[in-house]
Amino acid sequence: MASFTLDERLENDSIAMASLGLCQVRLMNDARWPWIILVPQRDGMSELHDLSPLDQTMLTFELGMAGKALKDATGCLKLNIGALGNHVRQLHMHVIARNEGDEAWPGPVWGVGTRTPYDKEDARSLIASILAKL
Amino acid sequence: MASFTLDERLENDSIAMASLGLCQVRLMNDARWPWIILVPQRDGMSELHDLSPLDQTMLTFELGMAGKALKDATGCLKLNIGALGNHVRQLHMHVIARNEGDEAWPGPVWGVGTRTPYDKEDARSLIASILAKL
Repeated sequence: MASFTLDERLENDSIAMASLGLCQVRLMNDARWPWIILVPQRDGMSELHDLSPLDQTMLTFELGMAGKALKDATGCLKLNIGALGNHVRQLHMHVIARNEGDEAWPGPVWGVGTRTPYDKEDARSLIASILAKL
Repeated sequence: MASFTLDERLENDSIAMASLGLCQVRLMNDARWPWIILVPQRDGMSELHDLSPLDQTMLTFELGMAGKALKDATGCLKLNIGALGNHVRQLHMHVIARNEGDEAWPGPVWGVGTRTPYDKEDARSLIASILAKL
């Protein structure tokens, strides 16, 4: 595999969960919503269409798999998927478990309030429950 | 193709642009950002992983193609891609052209302020310029 360096901000804001064929899967360290990110392990990618067709296909499958695992593990009402990159240009996809009445409902979560880091044991337990469904 | 009915709110808020192999492509009728939506023409889909693997792949290619066309036509700094569905459950993907200093920058556009409908000629001209790149 070509070299890959994870963006420093993504690294600081999230916790490593797993490495799939293309993507690193990471838990956003924000206890307000079960929220994972998928980062294709390719340097210099910023938009979805920057990826090769094969990588686009792999990203989609990994996104679908990870999203289903997150929904199964949390029993959430709806997933929110997004690739914004207004702050961090390295291509990364958000998958967030949403429920009526959560802190940002029905709006998006990005930019809302202040990140609430997990208690370490809670993060470990959530990661285990998501990986069990993956 | 199986039957497909477009959600009424999506229909009212956007303007038909094109029909691709899987998706309807529509321009959001909001002049604040060049903003298209892709709606897979399949009934009963709400999450990405509800689609068949082939449809997931097609959606990704159409999303990449449409995103590249939108970026080429507008010269925007960054695309924002999202599938939220907190209001409208029918699966649809947003692709939005973003620039520093736009009305919501660097936050997401969803839920911000009030939709500003296009002047008809402006919408027609933007649609033509995006389709020319597709």
